[in-house]
Amino acid sequence: MADIGKLLSPQSVAVVGASSDVQGLRGRILQTILSHPFAGKVYPVSRSATEVQGLKAYRSADILPELADLAILIVPAQYVPRELERCGRAGIKAAMILSSGFAEEGEAGAHMQDEIAGIARRYDMAVSGPNSEGFANIPAAFCPTFSPVLDKNAGPIKPARSLGAGKVSVISQSGGLGFAVFDRARPRNLAFQHVVSTGNEAALEASDFLDYMLDEGMTDIFLLLLEDVKSPERFKLVVEKALRAGKPIIVGKIGRSEAGSRAVTSHTAALAGSQTAYRAMFDRYGLIEAHEFDDMIDLAVGFLACGDRLPAGNRVGICTSSGGAGVWMADACAMAGLEVPVLDDATRKLIDPHIPSYGTSQNPVDSTAQGVHKMGYATFAQLVAQSSLTDSVVVVVTARRSAFLEGDLPKLKDLKKNSRKPVFMWTYTLPADRSVEILNEAGYPLFTGALGCARTMRALADYRALREQTLKNLQTVPAPHPGRAKVRAALAATGDTVLSEWRARPLFDVYGIGGNGGTLVRSVAEAQAAAKTIGQPVALKVQSPDIPHKTEAGGIALNIGIDDTGTAYERVLANAVRYMPTARIEGVLVQAMAPAGREVIVGINRDQRWGPLLMVGLGGILVETVHDVALAPVPLDRDAALALLGRLSGAALLGPYRGMPEADTGALADLMVKLSLFASDHAEDIAEIDLNPVIVHGKGDGVTVVDALIVKRTPHAAERHAAAE
Amino acid sequence: MADIGKLLSPQSVAVVGASSDVQGLRGRILQTILSHPFAGKVYPVSRSATEVQGLKAYRSADILPELADLAILIVPAQYVPRELERCGRAGIKAAMILSSGFAEEGEAGAHMQDEIAGIARRYDMAVSGPNSEGFANIPAAFCPTFSPVLDKNAGPIKPARSLGAGKVSVISQSGGLGFAVFDRARPRNLAFQHVVSTGNEAALEASDFLDYMLDEGMTDIFLLLLEDVKSPERFKLVVEKALRAGKPIIVGKIGRSEAGSRAVTSHTAALAGSQTAYRAMFDRYGLIEAHEFDDMIDLAVGFLACGDRLPAGNRVGICTSSGGAGVWMADACAMAGLEVPVLDDATRKLIDPHIPSYGTSQNPVDSTAQGVHKMGYATFAQLVAQSSLTDSVVVVVTARRSAFLEGDLPKLKDLKKNSRKPVFMWTYTLPADRSVEILNEAGYPLFTGALGCARTMRALADYRALREQTLKNLQTVPAPHPGRAKVRAALAATGDTVLSEWRARPLFDVYGIGGNGGTLVRSVAEAQAAAKTIGQPVALKVQSPDIPHKTEAGGIALNIGIDDTGTAYERVLANAVRYMPTARIEGVLVQAMAPAGREVIVGINRDQRWGPLLMVGLGGILVETVHDVALAPVPLDRDAALALLGRLSGAALLGPYRGMPEADTGALADLMVKLSLFASDHAEDIAEIDLNPVIVHGKGDGVTVVDALIVKRTPHAAERHAAAE
Repeated sequence: MADIGKLLSPQSVAVVGASSDVQGLRGRILQTILSHPFAGKVYPVSRSATEVQGLKAYRSADILPELADLAILIVPAQYVPRELERCGRAGIKAAMILSSGFAEEGEAGAHMQDEIAGIARRYDMAVSGPNSEGFANIPAAFCPTFSPVLDKNAGPIKPARSLGAGKVSVISQSGGLGFAVFDRARPRNLAFQHVVSTGNEAALEASDFLDYMLDEGMTDIFLLLLEDVKSPERFKLVVEKALRAGKPIIVGKIGRSEAGSRAVTSHTAALAGSQTAYRAMFDRYGLIEAHEFDDMIDLAVGFLACGDRLPAGNRVGICTSSGGAGVWMADACAMAGLEVPVLDDATRKLIDPHIPSYGTSQNPVDSTAQGVHKMGYATFAQLVAQSSLTDSVVVVVTARRSAFLEGDLPKLKDLKKNSRKPVFMWTYTLPADRSVEILNEAGYPLFTGALGCARTMRALADYRALREQTLKNLQTVPAPHPGRAKVRAALAATGDTVLSEWRARPLFDVYGIGGNGGTLVRSVAEAQAAAKTIGQPVALKVQSPDIPHKTEAGGIALNIGIDDTGTAYERVLANAVRYMPTARIEGVLVQAMAPAGREVIVGINRDQRWGPLLMVGLGGILVETVHDVALAPVPLDRDAALALLGRLSGAALLGPYRGMPEADTGALADLMVKLSLFASDHAEDIAEIDLNPVIVHGKGDGVTVVDALIVKRTPHAAERHAAAE
Repeated sequence: MADIGKLLSPQSVAVVGASSDVQGLRGRILQTILSHPFAGKVYPVSRSATEVQGLKAYRSADILPELADLAILIVPAQYVPRELERCGRAGIKAAMILSSGFAEEGEAGAHMQDEIAGIARRYDMAVSGPNSEGFANIPAAFCPTFSPVLDKNAGPIKPARSLGAGKVSVISQSGGLGFAVFDRARPRNLAFQHVVSTGNEAALEASDFLDYMLDEGMTDIFLLLLEDVKSPERFKLVVEKALRAGKPIIVGKIGRSEAGSRAVTSHTAALAGSQTAYRAMFDRYGLIEAHEFDDMIDLAVGFLACGDRLPAGNRVGICTSSGGAGVWMADACAMAGLEVPVLDDATRKLIDPHIPSYGTSQNPVDSTAQGVHKMGYATFAQLVAQSSLTDSVVVVVTARRSAFLEGDLPKLKDLKKNSRKPVFMWTYTLPADRSVEILNEAGYPLFTGALGCARTMRALADYRALREQTLKNLQTVPAPHPGRAKVRAALAATGDTVLSEWRARPLFDVYGIGGNGGTLVRSVAEAQAAAKTIGQPVALKVQSPDIPHKTEAGGIALNIGIDDTGTAYERVLANAVRYMPTARIEGVLVQAMAPAGREVIVGINRDQRWGPLLMVGLGGILVETVHDVALAPVPLDRDAALALLGRLSGAALLGPYRGMPEADTGALADLMVKLSLFASDHAEDIAEIDLNPVIVHGKGDGVTVVDALIVKRTPHAAERHAAAE
């Protein structure tokens, strides 16, 4: 296994292609390394110079005075494979390739990139890039990058006093964005461990670095800037490992929009997978998505300051000395989905003596400027934190002047030490640098955006809840179903791509999905007999592998009485033949009409990148007009299925609605769990499953799968996918 | 008419209650005034001191060497009326009351506040406050406020070089928030005209200041922080005036959430109106709502930089030197609802020669670092701006170092001068101060948030479109309907609060709303006769002023054949009587069943603050589960009605849907227009109107109002509202 430690924390480094011309990248990289107090040895390698930037230069990386831990390559693309090979042969175990001109420039470049991957494998080297902007190991002050953000004049790389004891690392496919996030975090006093740009990822991927840093144990929060995940299975394993370790991953997904994803593919030749699938994966593994750099940093600040004291719920107590600013924060909390409950009488009785008559202890607790001047911020925050009605506290301060905060500092430190609930600070004026320093030193995150503050608090609570739920789910990964082999054989035996309902049902039956299969009939007489046996109004549905969309074809008749069954049979058949004269008709399915209930769609779709995802949506209109669907990777357990239902905007429809009793969401969740196992057991064989509609009856009355369809993954499609990947 | 000019721009000022103790507010206010180079005369007024902060003090405001333009009052609340009276008698025409202890402290304080209002009226004085934090007239360097933001050490009040030629003013009910916004705008080089905190608004309201500043003509952009609007009609007139003048108002509404509005009422005794009604008013008059201070400032920066060159549409061209950052911006644009179209071939042919092979001209135009180093940012921006496919341009820069921008400056200035399309800059790294200065000087707004940048561009385009549409609408305010008097008389003649369908229909008929009135029957025989005349399945609906919700009462029978009409008649009557034995039953309405179509709800609700609002929502489920409704004040024209429909999340339902043809949205819009006139004509008499459901048929086939109800505004309710107001 390639040793990323040699790459990120080397004792000795060869810079292959180094130059004295600091206007060019080949000079800048060495200049930047030398401008920081890195303790390791640095060896310039140059074909033309004997000295580079005051250091003795060597003609090649294999004739250095010692075996370098790391080779940095910044020679023209066409020489990279040769130089890398030379390093590998010499026994150098890590290389970072800054040179560009590979897959991002077309086929010849892609070929060279494959060569690089081959060399890395052959010599078991940890190889990062090509087309990387380098990285920075902050504690080691080792900064092999040409990012201007790490120029010697760009400011200190470590804060004088950092917020909390933890550290943040950035892993980014785009160097520009990764270093920009580091740069923007500077005023927030975050301590960083690594900032890594992974470039084209010929060998090492973002997941590999994440995995290494989890093992290294020096990073507490990860900021991930992700254009694409090349190895989805590896990614899943690593983010699950992070979730287990309780190390939050904040992710900025690049290329979410059509124009953005068009640009990603053009500038890195990456394949932009489906964004909804990415989101489903993030949701599953507790990755927190953010859409602004400063939101990512807010989240990092919040997580770092809280450590393991994440809020147990969404109830916030707000303390303020400015009425207006307190209201502004209460509004922000509501927008973020947090509750701001009126405090309990016992707590209010403790607060009231400290505030003047024009203040209030209800929540927001408006202690007024007078109250705060008398008692300080910490006293109120502490009283609010001890209420059983709060899960967290936000203190609204004006951090424009630091003197007052300075006076409150001992009490603030006590509160930080003693409270198990997170306490955030939000300043509505611009903070003085010293105020930030004082508060950060006392362990408090200071936010300048009210929404940023509130959303961060919400994200912390969500992360805690999701982590608890997901770890449970991951512990109980279900075994394949005992009927798996039987279904797989049946799927293999079917020549058609589309399995219409009567052929899909028996397969679902094996997994306990469905019921109400109905009878396949092939004549008027059989249809009438079936209707008579059923003894209530029936549905008739043409079955043909060539007609997956029966409604469109007029191949369905609903609510048919016994007397009309014969006519209906002839009608749906005639419609189907008219719709597609060449269609192979397998017969007509006669089923009892389902009793009333909510109409739901449950399905499986195979994402090119992430494999099968379960989709659930409510009612025809909600799905079709406002795209109210929720997705999750398979398999999922009952809690996860219920949580998925809760994420639908129209979830209220499942409660008591228009005279209907509460829906049997438990039965719906069970169906989802079973279908997810089916999809997971047959992930390679299935492209799509539609249970549409499923009727969810009142509590205790279960669900009826009214229609069902399986679309197999054809070898052709599978190949096409593989080629695209 | 009180002269706000005397208040905001006085030549001479009395500070009543001034003190030498600068630890207290009474000393701070004078200290702050004196610390800025205000050219007017300042007279401390003190009962105890003969000299205050080095100035000769006077015993009262009526014995100054000259008649002061403005009196600032900072004496204890109980002395305020007496001192204000004294000022009025002396001929002082403006006063600002900083003292607190009025309506925010209960009934006695509210009474004193009324006294203040009376004195202001009596002496025709411009009176601001009480409970105000003061204001600042920035060009005059007159800063009568105790906000720490205007302390002499808090930094300059005018930028050395300002962005554009325009000015921004802040009007805020909360002093803390108003001055905080000014403070936060400092690093953005915005020039300010006024920052005003209006406090409790005993006399002058935010609208009055807005009106004055519009007349004054020195302010180009308004930032409004609004807890509540006390005089809605005045507010509407003034914001309409601003819209006509093309002066954008960016509004931060305080107290939007339940907890927030609870806190507003507790800290200012203001009445928090319905937030949806506020939003409908903002939408109508083009006020741009923002939820973060920094978003408000972003918007001000964007509007100020663009002046009258607002984008004509939503199509953005993006220029970038960093691939990743370009994608990030493209994603942000998509989130903000902007389009990032692939550029036309002609434009791409002009760009391509300037960029290396690994760049792209598609859009985002990734000119790569190399391309930008060769040509500068301006060249690419100019090429993208001249494409017929773009309405605006965003340039992604790294403003960490200013040298490069400095070199590009002449071309940037040319572009600014020549392009009619707005060009925004976004920096993904932290900008150097000098970079901000250079870009601002050249007239470019520089954003640090990608979403903030994109949302601002979107807001500019929206403002332009909405302004054009709304001004047209406002020009054609419809005359009252000729039948108005007749309907008014009929409403007055009705003793009941609820007008059930058969009594409401004739009133709607006058306005051309409805049709399909049906027949009121009072016996089985009449019911059967009516059904026979109709000659197709009918609906039967019990009519009673005591049963507005007929479905709940079982008072409706649908889809009844002629033979079943008698039974159905008896059934609905029996149900109604069982539901409410004391109900006065007026009869049963027999109507033809409406042909199929989309179910829509159209209604009127009277907001306590803003009067009647028209509401429209699609389909039962969308309204009931995801609250998909849109509101607008009445009356509205056809374009506004169509725009309102477009704002529904489920708007797609009105297009071709599930085999149904496109809905007759024109007919629906006509109905909305007529109903809005009805509501506007009878605003004082009507509490609620429900047309629910309205069936919208296919294009050309119009709409059917299936059920209708009017709830009159009772004298009791009207009084209660008046009392609350």
